[in-house]
Amino acid sequence: MTSHELPLGSVADLVARALHEDLAGGDLTTEACIDADAMARASAVARGAMVACGGAVFEQVFRAIDPSLVVERVAAEGERVGDGTTVWTVRGRARSILMGERVALNFVQRMIGIATMARSYVDALPEGSTTRITDIRKTTPGLRILERYAVRVGGAHNHRDNLGSAVLIKDNHIAACGGVGTAISRARARAPHTSRIECEVDSLEQLDQALAAGADIVLLDNMDDDTVREAVRRAKGRAITEASGGITLARIPALARLGVDVISAGALTHSVKSADVGLDFA
Amino acid sequence: MTSHELPLGSVADLVARALHEDLAGGDLTTEACIDADAMARASAVARGAMVACGGAVFEQVFRAIDPSLVVERVAAEGERVGDGTTVWTVRGRARSILMGERVALNFVQRMIGIATMARSYVDALPEGSTTRITDIRKTTPGLRILERYAVRVGGAHNHRDNLGSAVLIKDNHIAACGGVGTAISRARARAPHTSRIECEVDSLEQLDQALAAGADIVLLDNMDDDTVREAVRRAKGRAITEASGGITLARIPALARLGVDVISAGALTHSVKSADVGLDFA
Amino acid sequence: MTSHELPLGSVADLVARALHEDLAGGDLTTEACIDADAMARASAVARGAMVACGGAVFEQVFRAIDPSLVVERVAAEGERVGDGTTVWTVRGRARSILMGERVALNFVQRMIGIATMARSYVDALPEGSTTRITDIRKTTPGLRILERYAVRVGGAHNHRDNLGSAVLIKDNHIAACGGVGTAISRARARAPHTSRIECEVDSLEQLDQALAAGADIVLLDNMDDDTVREAVRRAKGRAITEASGGITLARIPALARLGVDVISAGALTHSVKSADVGLDFA
Amino acid sequence: MTSHELPLGSVADLVARALHEDLAGGDLTTEACIDADAMARASAVARGAMVACGGAVFEQVFRAIDPSLVVERVAAEGERVGDGTTVWTVRGRARSILMGERVALNFVQRMIGIATMARSYVDALPEGSTTRITDIRKTTPGLRILERYAVRVGGAHNHRDNLGSAVLIKDNHIAACGGVGTAISRARARAPHTSRIECEVDSLEQLDQALAAGADIVLLDNMDDDTVREAVRRAKGRAITEASGGITLARIPALARLGVDVISAGALTHSVKSADVGLDFA
Amino acid sequence: MTSHELPLGSVADLVARALHEDLAGGDLTTEACIDADAMARASAVARGAMVACGGAVFEQVFRAIDPSLVVERVAAEGERVGDGTTVWTVRGRARSILMGERVALNFVQRMIGIATMARSYVDALPEGSTTRITDIRKTTPGLRILERYAVRVGGAHNHRDNLGSAVLIKDNHIAACGGVGTAISRARARAPHTSRIECEVDSLEQLDQALAAGADIVLLDNMDDDTVREAVRRAKGRAITEASGGITLARIPALARLGVDVISAGALTHSVKSADVGLDFA
Amino acid sequence: MTSHELPLGSVADLVARALHEDLAGGDLTTEACIDADAMARASAVARGAMVACGGAVFEQVFRAIDPSLVVERVAAEGERVGDGTTVWTVRGRARSILMGERVALNFVQRMIGIATMARSYVDALPEGSTTRITDIRKTTPGLRILERYAVRVGGAHNHRDNLGSAVLIKDNHIAACGGVGTAISRARARAPHTSRIECEVDSLEQLDQALAAGADIVLLDNMDDDTVREAVRRAKGRAITEASGGITLARIPALARLGVDVISAGALTHSVKSADVGLDFA
Repeated sequence: MTSHELPLGSVADLVARALHEDLAGGDLTTEACIDADAMARASAVARGAMVACGGAVFEQVFRAIDPSLVVERVAAEGERVGDGTTVWTVRGRARSILMGERVALNFVQRMIGIATMARSYVDALPEGSTTRITDIRKTTPGLRILERYAVRVGGAHNHRDNLGSAVLIKDNHIAACGGVGTAISRARARAPHTSRIECEVDSLEQLDQALAAGADIVLLDNMDDDTVREAVRRAKGRAITEASGGITLARIPALARLGVDVISAGALTHSVKSADVGLDFA
Repeated sequence: MTSHELPLGSVADLVARALHEDLAGGDLTTEACIDADAMARASAVARGAMVACGGAVFEQVFRAIDPSLVVERVAAEGERVGDGTTVWTVRGRARSILMGERVALNFVQRMIGIATMARSYVDALPEGSTTRITDIRKTTPGLRILERYAVRVGGAHNHRDNLGSAVLIKDNHIAACGGVGTAISRARARAPHTSRIECEVDSLEQLDQALAAGADIVLLDNMDDDTVREAVRRAKGRAITEASGGITLARIPALARLGVDVISAGALTHSVKSADVGLDFA
Repeated sequence: MTSHELPLGSVADLVARALHEDLAGGDLTTEACIDADAMARASAVARGAMVACGGAVFEQVFRAIDPSLVVERVAAEGERVGDGTTVWTVRGRARSILMGERVALNFVQRMIGIATMARSYVDALPEGSTTRITDIRKTTPGLRILERYAVRVGGAHNHRDNLGSAVLIKDNHIAACGGVGTAISRARARAPHTSRIECEVDSLEQLDQALAAGADIVLLDNMDDDTVREAVRRAKGRAITEASGGITLARIPALARLGVDVISAGALTHSVKSADVGLDFA
Repeated sequence: MTSHELPLGSVADLVARALHEDLAGGDLTTEACIDADAMARASAVARGAMVACGGAVFEQVFRAIDPSLVVERVAAEGERVGDGTTVWTVRGRARSILMGERVALNFVQRMIGIATMARSYVDALPEGSTTRITDIRKTTPGLRILERYAVRVGGAHNHRDNLGSAVLIKDNHIAACGGVGTAISRARARAPHTSRIECEVDSLEQLDQALAAGADIVLLDNMDDDTVREAVRRAKGRAITEASGGITLARIPALARLGVDVISAGALTHSVKSADVGLDFA
Repeated sequence: MTSHELPLGSVADLVARALHEDLAGGDLTTEACIDADAMARASAVARGAMVACGGAVFEQVFRAIDPSLVVERVAAEGERVGDGTTVWTVRGRARSILMGERVALNFVQRMIGIATMARSYVDALPEGSTTRITDIRKTTPGLRILERYAVRVGGAHNHRDNLGSAVLIKDNHIAACGGVGTAISRARARAPHTSRIECEVDSLEQLDQALAAGADIVLLDNMDDDTVREAVRRAKGRAITEASGGITLARIPALARLGVDVISAGALTHSVKSADVGLDFA
Repeated sequence: MTSHELPLGSVADLVARALHEDLAGGDLTTEACIDADAMARASAVARGAMVACGGAVFEQVFRAIDPSLVVERVAAEGERVGDGTTVWTVRGRARSILMGERVALNFVQRMIGIATMARSYVDALPEGSTTRITDIRKTTPGLRILERYAVRVGGAHNHRDNLGSAVLIKDNHIAACGGVGTAISRARARAPHTSRIECEVDSLEQLDQALAAGADIVLLDNMDDDTVREAVRRAKGRAITEASGGITLARIPALARLGVDVISAGALTHSVKSADVGLDFA
């Protein structure tokens, strides 16, 4: 299993803001009900099968509230855990744990939800398939770093990080340039040589134009199976093929069998059900 | 229709961060393909039935990129719009519109998704019901202000804003205090007199203790219909009843008929499918 | 003595800003006069009787400058200390202590000033009184979290945290609604069920309207003793009574004897004399 | 009357934070009670005699909430206004005005309080006196820019802005250097040539040492009148004299008559009573 | 001439910080010497030949201080201007212009310096050359967005924006993987399909390995002319060639004639002489 | 060797921003090529003679990425090191070191470049000279704290920190006041008594006016040697003389021999070549 990095410096700021959002007015209940020196131990427990993700964020939340809390990561990032499994534990001052519980869970339930959905998409690929599943830029504003990480932890891949990482020519760009060829050559002339040029095509004619113009990647937008099959045939050896647009889990096996190189799915990040993870006190 | 306020000062910072996330490296494609002085007009169009929500955020995103853009809000906040309806429009420099498109949509697709789900929950209430539907604190870290607003726009209500707004005594607090009565009296002694005291109960015995101790609100946690009915009967005139725990749309009518005052559902914010809104260029 | 929590995550940012304000240009004097490896030990000493408050902030300031500094909290938060008492000590690099001295004192002198004033108001309550003293939202912009904490440390209570925590209907709201009854019912229909509804009244007639409309709390605005007495009589068992408006220490005993539940005093935070605390080097 | 500048760029951030502190959870009461399109006009009215200060902040608060609000500054900064005088007005959406009322007043009540106190100290100087009154660094953490401005508006002067603006050698620095002379020469060797060197002295012997070492300013710390008189005599023509330490309004005339050049008073900022300014709706 | 975009949202924050750095303590001189209502007009004038760059930043600085200032951009971005040319003008309150002068110049002198140096590198390319000149990630911490923009304005290109935009395998990565082939295949397996894979090689053997492993780009590190010529021959049609390492202006023509596709030069941003631009008052 | 302080609290924020700029999208290459548990040790090695500077920043960068990294500072701040010298080392997780490498070097290469240039200016002073070399406010926006520190580490001095630290009257101020005398007296009346008054003069006549008006410092703007000599003669014992304007290394010895007290050179910060420092992995 590859190990993925989550740059902690950037996470610290997100955690600080989330804690401020929930705690700037204090925790009325905990301050009233829990003795200041009471100690506790709590376990983050999976309620259902899921893919562990976000241990570093879980730890960061509690450590930001109280550096004396001790977090143990029981499950590895990306590990599949079953119902009832303890994923992580935290122990120390009971007040500190209770004050951070909701924020920690709000973060990791979303991250686990994404990792688990990504995993299911990857698992839906036929045995031996080399097709890769990717996210797109439909991430929660401000949380992209966490969501792209969760996609990787789930075994899928990332698309371009942002508008400055790579070129993706869409219909409006093509229209403004008067055609696919001009759009691609203008992009080639301006974009860093380290960035690939991807061009969205919605017909085989546009595909041919994009291939002729030297697109590195062609995005096959909302095409039916037959068109995808033909597009893959034409692009073979000339450009990477990416199927996109309304991708659902059900369509993954068929698309992969058609031989597309990449299937990109906004659903991985924009329509995720938070995983059910509870914090159980021992 | 009540009109809801979204404090713009706090939104500006969220918008700035989201734009920085997507645009700090520039927009390679747009800079290459679109002339600097090209003008355009685009419409945010609903693909399906939904509840309009987030017009102020939509406008703020585009104005932050380019103060010369003009946004028109066609649909009112909270208005039900059908498939193909134009919700808002933006016009001005084509580059500026394209650079903000994804960020604007990422915000409003989520807000509309929440407002639309809230609407469906509220619509599921029986005719004449006085039961209110509320969110809980299971919001996306950092975006609570937007998500609670969307819940209201959808016709539902908000639960407490954060840990400092009201008291909610849960099992760990009760355990630490040695009982419901002590927990409630300690909370009463400490919390602002402007905050109500809510106590989670998972049995009729705990309910009786909470009522005896003077809880303002009792949270009926994961109770079946019969228990809820009896709890409502016992609490009548003594405390507000709130049904919570694994609430789904399907259960709303029955719970409302049982007479609970409040049904709180984390699903309104933590498991939302982004609404399908496209930005169509004229 | 109850122990109060000060969420450290939110405090860290305030401390960083205050240090930047004083130290962004360096400390000319200390860099010139103190050897880099000189060590020192300094004590925060009370000059006069006061209530200890802000130990966590004192520590945070010095640790932010130099994590190797060691702070010892001699007095407990809320402890009454006499003239000449050492409240906290700090030891380590002399330069680091001198660079943080003024910022640390500026924070804690204000916090101790508030805690001490709050204590004096609480001490002015007659023996056995159940009346509670509270702050209001007249806090220093940006420092509310510290000032409300100091109020609690001094033995008083907090009013609502902010405009989103609870409802407080004032004259302009009443005027806009055309009367107390409408204002209260509109607020009830919109506010979270976890928030109480408070209504400001300036006459017994308004009081009667507020009680009839079901206000949870009535704010008796600037009433004389006789009116307060009658208001308390009418509200008994129906609403919490809060005396407010130009409250001074001198009036506390009389108001408490009249039986009001709450006395709220903006003076606790908006007109505080900083406590005289010095940092004495051993 | 000199006109003082308040750098607006730095103020905008303070205002944004203060608004977030009070409004992140919305304004429950105003949203419920005030129609979205109701308009209003409100006047900031002095309750008592005071010195107008903070008009730019007052305006910035309301404009940050709602750029369509119109603020009129009736009184000039630094103008003495009597009881009942309208200082500024704001008009526009009633909701926006009510949402900003408390934050705006919290800022300006403090600023006016400082300006008014500064004015009273300056007014206490004997006719024709050239002594100047100054603040010191005992300002509210994070608000120094506003408070120093208010001091100037009140007719007094500022001391050094922060630890990097000028040198002020205190007892600990002297002790570390083994004497006044060494401390001053080390400071002279390191500090920018644009900064003056001030040295705190608590006896006439120390004064002589400081003068001999070429201090630009001598801070006469907590000296009685006779000692101050003699110190002024010895320093005449050699160094600026500054009386400091426990300065009260009552002592201003005498100190000025003794001929000190500067009287510095921490009370101007650390122990200010907020001015009573109300926002009256027309 | 292509027109380059500088995302203003991200620039606003840099400008606010720079202004705070210089103006948090006010502008002593201007407040004393310039009347509050004095008006002025000033021109940013080139002292020597240079490439205009940073007009939007120049404007943003002055507008952040005082929205009533009017900036006129006389020269277009990227335009070559001669000694004595007016590049931009600003007019309005004299105080506001003087307060922003230094910050505005500090920004644009650096941006113009970079654009001018980039221009000189591009101009050194032989007639008809298709070699492109690029920056690398050796930018001033925090100002990358401005510096990469200036490189483009000068006619050069950008390399990858940051560590997440594209892959660049260096000696340490190769060593850790045990060889070029493994490093490239691991990177291919992990990186977004939108990112190219670049591999640094310091010998023809490594070059062959990189080509065999399918590198998209080969970075020819510090190679002499003969080696570069041979590397270009071998890579022709298989990978983009990039010459890097100690690139100076003098070597550009020769390298271009050898046929490398890209010459990357850290000097464009890390060792720039600020352009001499003065602000002349009319 | 004096030891200089770099306030770490203010540095932390700069480091966090720089890391976010380079790492928000992760490090594609390192995540792919380096095992998560691989350890490494790397040395920052001088390539050429230079003055060590920025060890605290070097350490802060790596610690912000990974608190488990261990940094050893081999060379002292300000120490002259020769080609091939190890200045600092860092050891720990290889991934963490590689992720921070570029940001750490971008900071310290600039700081060392400044310190080394400052050193060369100071070394150019004739034996026994008491003239001091200073920077001016031509620093990189946002990095002033680091650059002024580097100037000091190089043995030079700082000029005023910002517009609020001291007065510097320039031609526009003089023109607005109608003359040098008025400008100086207005500045004296307004500026803190802790700030010196400097006045720019471009002729001997203006010099005489400035001296007559009591300027503390006269800035001799772009004067030739003969004029400087005469100016120094006239100012002797009356004001500090500062030569400024187009100062180059070559002119330092002559200016110092003319007896000016201060030579201020913007080149120390605005036109610095980054030092060549490499990070060599053992």
